[in-house]
Amino acid sequence: MERLLMTPGPTNIPREVFKSMSYNIHHRTDEFMHIMDRADKKLMRVFGSKNEILILSCSGTGGLEASVVNMFSPGDKLLCINCGVFGKRYADIARAYGVDVTELKSELGYGIRMEALEKELEKNHYKAVYATYSETSTGIKNDIKEIGDIVKKYDSLFIIDAVSALGCLKLDVDEYGVDVAVAGSQKGLMCPPGLSLISMSDRAWLETQKSRIAKFYFDFGKYKNLRMPYTPCTSLILGLDKALDMILGEGLENVYKRHSIYSKAVKEAALIMNLVEFPDRRFDSEVLTALYVPQDIDEKALRRGMYNRGIVIAGGQGKLKGNIIRIGHIGYLKNEFIIRTIGTLGSVLNEMGYKNDTGSAILRAEEIINTL
Amino acid sequence: MERLLMTPGPTNIPREVFKSMSYNIHHRTDEFMHIMDRADKKLMRVFGSKNEILILSCSGTGGLEASVVNMFSPGDKLLCINCGVFGKRYADIARAYGVDVTELKSELGYGIRMEALEKELEKNHYKAVYATYSETSTGIKNDIKEIGDIVKKYDSLFIIDAVSALGCLKLDVDEYGVDVAVAGSQKGLMCPPGLSLISMSDRAWLETQKSRIAKFYFDFGKYKNLRMPYTPCTSLILGLDKALDMILGEGLENVYKRHSIYSKAVKEAALIMNLVEFPDRRFDSEVLTALYVPQDIDEKALRRGMYNRGIVIAGGQGKLKGNIIRIGHIGYLKNEFIIRTIGTLGSVLNEMGYKNDTGSAILRAEEIINTL
Repeated sequence: MERLLMTPGPTNIPREVFKSMSYNIHHRTDEFMHIMDRADKKLMRVFGSKNEILILSCSGTGGLEASVVNMFSPGDKLLCINCGVFGKRYADIARAYGVDVTELKSELGYGIRMEALEKELEKNHYKAVYATYSETSTGIKNDIKEIGDIVKKYDSLFIIDAVSALGCLKLDVDEYGVDVAVAGSQKGLMCPPGLSLISMSDRAWLETQKSRIAKFYFDFGKYKNLRMPYTPCTSLILGLDKALDMILGEGLENVYKRHSIYSKAVKEAALIMNLVEFPDRRFDSEVLTALYVPQDIDEKALRRGMYNRGIVIAGGQGKLKGNIIRIGHIGYLKNEFIIRTIGTLGSVLNEMGYKNDTGSAILRAEEIINTL
Repeated sequence: MERLLMTPGPTNIPREVFKSMSYNIHHRTDEFMHIMDRADKKLMRVFGSKNEILILSCSGTGGLEASVVNMFSPGDKLLCINCGVFGKRYADIARAYGVDVTELKSELGYGIRMEALEKELEKNHYKAVYATYSETSTGIKNDIKEIGDIVKKYDSLFIIDAVSALGCLKLDVDEYGVDVAVAGSQKGLMCPPGLSLISMSDRAWLETQKSRIAKFYFDFGKYKNLRMPYTPCTSLILGLDKALDMILGEGLENVYKRHSIYSKAVKEAALIMNLVEFPDRRFDSEVLTALYVPQDIDEKALRRGMYNRGIVIAGGQGKLKGNIIRIGHIGYLKNEFIIRTIGTLGSVLNEMGYKNDTGSAILRAEEIINTL
C-alpha cells in the first residue's frame, strides 16, 4: 500500500515528477547541461538569490556539513541558535571540525527571542551566526528576516538551515541578508531525498577562500559555475526541474499561502479535537503541526493506527520522543490529503478512547481550505 | 530524444527500476526498513561479503572519500596504485586529509605489474594499499585477487575502487582479501547515480576506531546495523532493490559472462572496422572498450555524430582527451544496444571519411553475441 506521507519530509511526490525522473540521460551532454542551467535559474528564484545555487548529491545534513567545511577554519567562532534537534546538529557538525561553537538555546517549542540574540552579539563577536528557519523537531520557525537584520549590524556571516522551509515559508536570501542557506530536495521542493541545494552570497564565496578545513567531495569551489566535478544525481535533478516548474507555475506567493492555509486547517481541526499544540503560538511554523499526545494515549499505537490506515505521521525526536506527534503539511499536497489526515487522526483517537468530534473538525478544516 | 547511454556510466536504466523508484515511502517505517534489509542482503551476495554493505547518499567519489576519512589518520602511509584518473583521484583525496601517499604508477593503458607491487611492499611498509579494479579512464582492469594475495602477505589493508566493476567483473571481497570496496549505483547496478555502496571487512571496522580524521556525514559508525542517521535516497534504494532482483535472478556468473561476451563483440567489431584498442590486451577490462581515434578524425565530431543519432559514448579524460573514445558496455544492456552502437559508429566513421566494413563488423558481433 502506497501511503500518504504527512511528515515534515520526505513528502509526497507528484506523479509528473516521478515521470520526469524516469529518463535515461548522461550528465556530460548538452541536453543535461541545459537542464541543469534552467533548473538552477528556477532555484535562484525560489531562494531569492542573484547567485547560482549549488546542487550537491547528499542529504540536507551533508549540505549543512558542506557549509561548515567551506566557511570555517578550526577555532573560528560560531554562534549557533539552537531551538531543537536541527540546531543542535549544526553545533555538533561544527564542533567535529574544531569550530569554536557557542550555543544560544531557546526553550523547546519556542523560537529565539531577538533580545537574547542581540545581548549575546553585543558581548561577543562571532564570525558567523547560524539559525534554523523551520525547526521540525518542535514545530517552530525563527524570524529569519529579523535575525538577519541583527546579524548584519554586528558584521557576522548569517547561515541558515532552510531544509524544511524552502518552498513553504517565504524566503528571499538576498533581501534577508542570508549568506548561506541550505535546503534539501525532499521537503517543499516535492522531490525524493538525495539533493542538497545551497545559496551563497558574494561575501560567503569570499570567505570560502580562507577556510583551512580539509575537504574534497564537499569543496564548493569545484562546483562553481554549474560544474559537475563528480557524477550528479541525474534522475533527481530531472525531477527537481519538473517540480520547480510546478512551484513557479503556481507562483511562490500562492505556494506560501497554500501552506499557510493547510497549516491553519490542521491546527484548528486539532483544537476542535481537543488536541493541544506543542509550540508556542508566536513561533508556530506552517511546515508542520506538533501536538501533545493526550494523556493515556500511547504515541506509538496512535501512529501505528494511522500507518495501518495508510497515513505516515512523525513522532517526537530527542527529549520529545513519545510526548508529541508531528503532522507535516508541506510540499505536494491536495485538499483531500488534509481532510483525510484529520479524519483518520480523529477516528483513530476515538477508537483509542480519546473521544472527539472529528466531524466538526473536518467541517472547520474544509471551511478554511475553501478560502484558498 | 532519450538516448542510449553507451558510456562507462551512468548507464541505461531498466523501466522496471524506474517504476520501482516511483513510489512514495518514508524511511522511518517498517516497510522501508524491510526493503533496506533485503536490499542489503542482496548487495552482500553481489560483493561476496559476509558483512553488511554500507549505503551512503553520495556519488562514488563521496564513497571513496568516506573510506579515506574512516580508515586513516594524518601521517598514515598509503600505497596508491595509480593506473589513470581514478587511481590519481584516490591519491588526491587521501592527500587532502594529510595521509602520507606514495603513488605506484602504471603506464597509461596498463594495469599494475605484480613484480612492481611486490618490490615496493618489500621496501616499505604501508598501512594500506589502494587499487582501482576497472580503471575506466584507460579501459584496463587490475587483477584484484592477485593483488589481494600480495597485500595480505605484507599485512597491509586492501582498499579497492569497485565503482565501475561491481556487477560486471567477478568480485568476492571476502575471498579476495579486500578490506574496503567502494561501488556506485550508476554502473553495473543499473540504477541512476546517487548511492555509494561500501563493503567493510572485520579488520576494516576495527581500523575505523583508530581514525583521527574529522568527519560527520561520512562517519561509518553511524551507519552500522543498517541505521539511517540522515534521510537516505529512498527512491534510489527502491530502484536498487529491484535492480538487484534482476541481477541475482539472472545469476551473477551469467551477468559476468554477458559482460564478457558483449565486450568481446564490441572489441572484435572495432578491430574489423580498423580501430585500434588503447589498452594493452593483457589488462583489457570488460567494462568498456577504449579505442584510439583514427588519424584525421576529429574526436568531438565523431562523438557528436553518434550523439545526433541517439547514442552517447565517452571521450578521453586527462592526458587522453581528444585521443581516445570510450564505449561502455555495462549494466542494463540488450543485444540490439550493442549491434546498434557498432552500426552507428561504423556509419558515422564512414561518413567522416574513415572507410570501414561496418556490415562485417556487425556480423561478427552478432556471431559472438549468439554464443550467449
